[in-house]
Amino acid sequence: MENNLPPRLIDESNTTFRSVSEGSEKWLYRPIQCLDHGFVYLVDYCGDDYSIVQAARVSYGQGTKKVSTDEGLIRYLMRHAHTTPFEMVEFKFHCKMPIFVARQWIRHRMASVNEYSGRYSEMLNEFYLPDRSVLKKQATGNRQGRGDDLSVDDQNFVLGLLKSEYGSQHATYKRFLEIDLAKELARIGLSVANYTQWYWKIDLHNLFHFLRLRLDSHAQHEIQVFGQAIAQIISESVPMAWKAFEDYRLYSVNFSRLELDVLGQNQWPMSEEKASQVILSIVNKREREEFWDKLKNLNFIT
Amino acid sequence: MENNLPPRLIDESNTTFRSVSEGSEKWLYRPIQCLDHGFVYLVDYCGDDYSIVQAARVSYGQGTKKVSTDEGLIRYLMRHAHTTPFEMVEFKFHCKMPIFVARQWIRHRMASVNEYSGRYSEMLNEFYLPDRSVLKKQATGNRQGRGDDLSVDDQNFVLGLLKSEYGSQHATYKRFLEIDLAKELARIGLSVANYTQWYWKIDLHNLFHFLRLRLDSHAQHEIQVFGQAIAQIISESVPMAWKAFEDYRLYSVNFSRLELDVLGQNQWPMSEEKASQVILSIVNKREREEFWDKLKNLNFIT
Amino acid sequence: MENNLPPRLIDESNTTFRSVSEGSEKWLYRPIQCLDHGFVYLVDYCGDDYSIVQAARVSYGQGTKKVSTDEGLIRYLMRHAHTTPFEMVEFKFHCKMPIFVARQWIRHRMASVNEYSGRYSEMLNEFYLPDRSVLKKQATGNRQGRGDDLSVDDQNFVLGLLKSEYGSQHATYKRFLEIDLAKELARIGLSVANYTQWYWKIDLHNLFHFLRLRLDSHAQHEIQVFGQAIAQIISESVPMAWKAFEDYRLYSVNFSRLELDVLGQNQWPMSEEKASQVILSIVNKREREEFWDKLKNLNFIT
Amino acid sequence: MENNLPPRLIDESNTTFRSVSEGSEKWLYRPIQCLDHGFVYLVDYCGDDYSIVQAARVSYGQGTKKVSTDEGLIRYLMRHAHTTPFEMVEFKFHCKMPIFVARQWIRHRMASVNEYSGRYSEMLNEFYLPDRSVLKKQATGNRQGRGDDLSVDDQNFVLGLLKSEYGSQHATYKRFLEIDLAKELARIGLSVANYTQWYWKIDLHNLFHFLRLRLDSHAQHEIQVFGQAIAQIISESVPMAWKAFEDYRLYSVNFSRLELDVLGQNQWPMSEEKASQVILSIVNKREREEFWDKLKNLNFIT
Repeated sequence: MENNLPPRLIDESNTTFRSVSEGSEKWLYRPIQCLDHGFVYLVDYCGDDYSIVQAARVSYGQGTKKVSTDEGLIRYLMRHAHTTPFEMVEFKFHCKMPIFVARQWIRHRMASVNEYSGRYSEMLNEFYLPDRSVLKKQATGNRQGRGDDLSVDDQNFVLGLLKSEYGSQHATYKRFLEIDLAKELARIGLSVANYTQWYWKIDLHNLFHFLRLRLDSHAQHEIQVFGQAIAQIISESVPMAWKAFEDYRLYSVNFSRLELDVLGQNQWPMSEEKASQVILSIVNKREREEFWDKLKNLNFIT
Repeated sequence: MENNLPPRLIDESNTTFRSVSEGSEKWLYRPIQCLDHGFVYLVDYCGDDYSIVQAARVSYGQGTKKVSTDEGLIRYLMRHAHTTPFEMVEFKFHCKMPIFVARQWIRHRMASVNEYSGRYSEMLNEFYLPDRSVLKKQATGNRQGRGDDLSVDDQNFVLGLLKSEYGSQHATYKRFLEIDLAKELARIGLSVANYTQWYWKIDLHNLFHFLRLRLDSHAQHEIQVFGQAIAQIISESVPMAWKAFEDYRLYSVNFSRLELDVLGQNQWPMSEEKASQVILSIVNKREREEFWDKLKNLNFIT
Repeated sequence: MENNLPPRLIDESNTTFRSVSEGSEKWLYRPIQCLDHGFVYLVDYCGDDYSIVQAARVSYGQGTKKVSTDEGLIRYLMRHAHTTPFEMVEFKFHCKMPIFVARQWIRHRMASVNEYSGRYSEMLNEFYLPDRSVLKKQATGNRQGRGDDLSVDDQNFVLGLLKSEYGSQHATYKRFLEIDLAKELARIGLSVANYTQWYWKIDLHNLFHFLRLRLDSHAQHEIQVFGQAIAQIISESVPMAWKAFEDYRLYSVNFSRLELDVLGQNQWPMSEEKASQVILSIVNKREREEFWDKLKNLNFIT
Repeated sequence: MENNLPPRLIDESNTTFRSVSEGSEKWLYRPIQCLDHGFVYLVDYCGDDYSIVQAARVSYGQGTKKVSTDEGLIRYLMRHAHTTPFEMVEFKFHCKMPIFVARQWIRHRMASVNEYSGRYSEMLNEFYLPDRSVLKKQATGNRQGRGDDLSVDDQNFVLGLLKSEYGSQHATYKRFLEIDLAKELARIGLSVANYTQWYWKIDLHNLFHFLRLRLDSHAQHEIQVFGQAIAQIISESVPMAWKAFEDYRLYSVNFSRLELDVLGQNQWPMSEEKASQVILSIVNKREREEFWDKLKNLNFIT
């Protein structure tokens, strides 16, 4: 698998007294392509699974003989939302993405960012053109996402118009620069599909929060792609913490007080017919539908 | 119940164009006693349940016809961790607590604090003396909490020694001040049971996070008392958000990936005997014990 | 002047036990127009000048008899960077601005934001078209700003092209919606001149930081406009704090160690000829030029 | 000088593709003693001077040919408060300090902390006993600091009483543990001079802010000691950024609008007599005194 890794941008090693994560080292300066012109790669990091344990042990001292192994302690911390030790690991990425993705990304405030500036530098002729596979209709149930496929004709129509828009926008931009219009003004007609880039530094606790939201199926597809690239790196950088994150956050399910009441008063699994009766104690239709989906996923409805 | 309210410190009303929360107004400047010398009262606030809805609607615009009511929208936001609208409500409290409580409290970084300063001002002769009902032995299962009762003799022993310590500490402090030792040095022999106070301003999202951790039975009893006082105020200040918080956060239960596997592969409820077999797929003893407790609470083990 | 205020959106008053700022009340729900389609107005607030004093007094207690007046204390706090009491005042605005302005604005992380979402809601046909007076060439000295005027012909050229781009972008967007392309995709060809809007809540300390950077002549003109609108409101909401901010932050000047050395070793004012010799001890040309400008502004060079 | 370094706790090196700071490597795991039982040492780091440049260059791109050298760019960033690139460097320390120092330290919220917990672990019999050289009277001008020396008799009195208090406190604590009182209660009689410890992780921008406040002569002496130890490490870890910090922050002086008016309307230096007249335009006595001190330091008053 190592053979299939993208080429490393920098390949000069140094000696350090710091702890080293094998998985992080593997991914340093190896870009993962995201969308048509974007990428993510690890530029720097600080700490590994052991750093989480080290920080936690300063709190627990002799008090934690029961949680004997490092992995056990990491899982305990994740399970009980003792989140501060996860802040002790830090990652810095170089990322390139469409502006509309950057706008969703930047909402995660607990991170450090240095972005390419269209006031100083010329914006590149790189715009996001979606792959046909993700060109879809507005979802009906989910108000913010995508639903059914577009017809091939409509796909062609969309791609053609987007290409034409992008071409026109960039030509206009170049003409503005030619007459020496201030760069900060020249770029205002460029669309949010135009690519930008930044350095992004974040600790593991906040990165997990980012990933939980951005790996979610309700996140816009284009930012999910970046989330998946980062997840690939992190899963090898801090393998124990990653597994705990999957078990207790990413693939866990939360049941509300109302749902727990229904669960506790019945025998499971039950028939669809019975289930549709039983969940009526949850008055709100939308909450009921979401509960139904959870029960289905649990095989609690036969 | 209104009749039993503590006296209001300030009772002069003004006219405003801002939105007003009836519940918040009720609690403004009405201290709730906490522990022997402490208190919490609401000094100022900004926003109410409707402010959450108002901020969310700027995002969802025409896209949310389905979530028709205000309460439905608030519950939807809480359920799906759309937390930013809850940041639009703000509360400011005046709080007085022992230093050891303040030290746990201050770990919540997303808040504004102005604390009484022992460098400028004289520390008062007020120290926390626990009630007999909370003087307990070290817990055995839980490494950080309290377990069985102390004997009455041991209670007397503890209270006597504490009183004597406090008396001696404060007498020493006063003698230091008499010889004009710098206040910032004179106070270093005072214990963490000495009372301090502060103004504390926090938004509702971060306050819910604080309350979730500090109302938990694993939090130190003394900070739980402050959490409960604040919860009483908040439950009336933003009643819809509070109910959603209870349903989806405070009284919800999270099941891990491993636990979901066990749930989905069996019929519930089941006998203790069978349950103890079935959960063996969870290797870690501590995780297994915690799962057992969840199943018991759900009546899934008979 | 009050007569010229823009119309108030909501004009219904309530009774409250909270402190009230006359200046804030005046500006509640009164939009100030910014650029061609934008605005800012105050939606809610918490605290006034007195709230700063109140919070500071909890720290200083009896220790601050010397700072006898409220205004004196506020000025002392500002002068000595005792910033936490300024966090005790909070403002919430509803703002509408071009996306490229929003992108600069959002970099201020210590604030709460709920933004209009192009995933849920239809983007409006409103794009920023600069006034002729601000259509300028790239600056030469300052790498990021504007310099000389464009010719009228070039102005016409720019405005014509921008209008045409905006028209095309929006027509394309509408055609995408007609074939039911997911809204989150349909909008990616819209430019950063398209207007968005948000609720923005921030405390006074962080707002002062925002204003210091965004009122600066090096900030992009378009965000300065919003900074000025907010400054107008704040200067009446917390008049004492505002004046201290002007005196000690906005219109103060910082001299570096190297500059202080030059100042202390010479007599001032001096001739241009002598000054150009004297500042040679500052090796870096750019630092020297900046020092020169400060000396000029001080009338220290004749 | 390297020969006098304290012994390194860990001395095993690894290979990494990350950038390495020679100065940081030198200080990894080498404790610097602070006060009688405290210390600070560097546990981990991420980035060096070049990381600041690297992040800034992503913004400035081709737009910054004028700032040709790395050091020039770092100085430019510091001078113009372009602070985000400094966030790209991260440091993690293990620190041990008295609780009253920890309580001042923790007010810096933009950092990650894992502290030793008295709920889990036994508090040690280590209390801060001030050196005679810092045992001073309350300052008169400065309301929060230290002034004249204590008499030797008074020093003996203070040290004797403190030792006796500490002894009594710890004996009480041990007796509480013997009767198995919950640790979280047993420790409440221990004073704020008792030592605690933590892992502390912070980025360079926020560390500079910490140092600016805590190296200041108005900070409590005991936290200054920790500030100085950290400054020693940082000055070698990021030598270019450190020098810029000294020149533009630590040893710079800010002149207010009122002070600039006085400066610009007069010839400097001038006599004490004249100066005392000239500064009368500054109405507030305290502001006037502070201005006087600045003028004195500048040799502007003869």
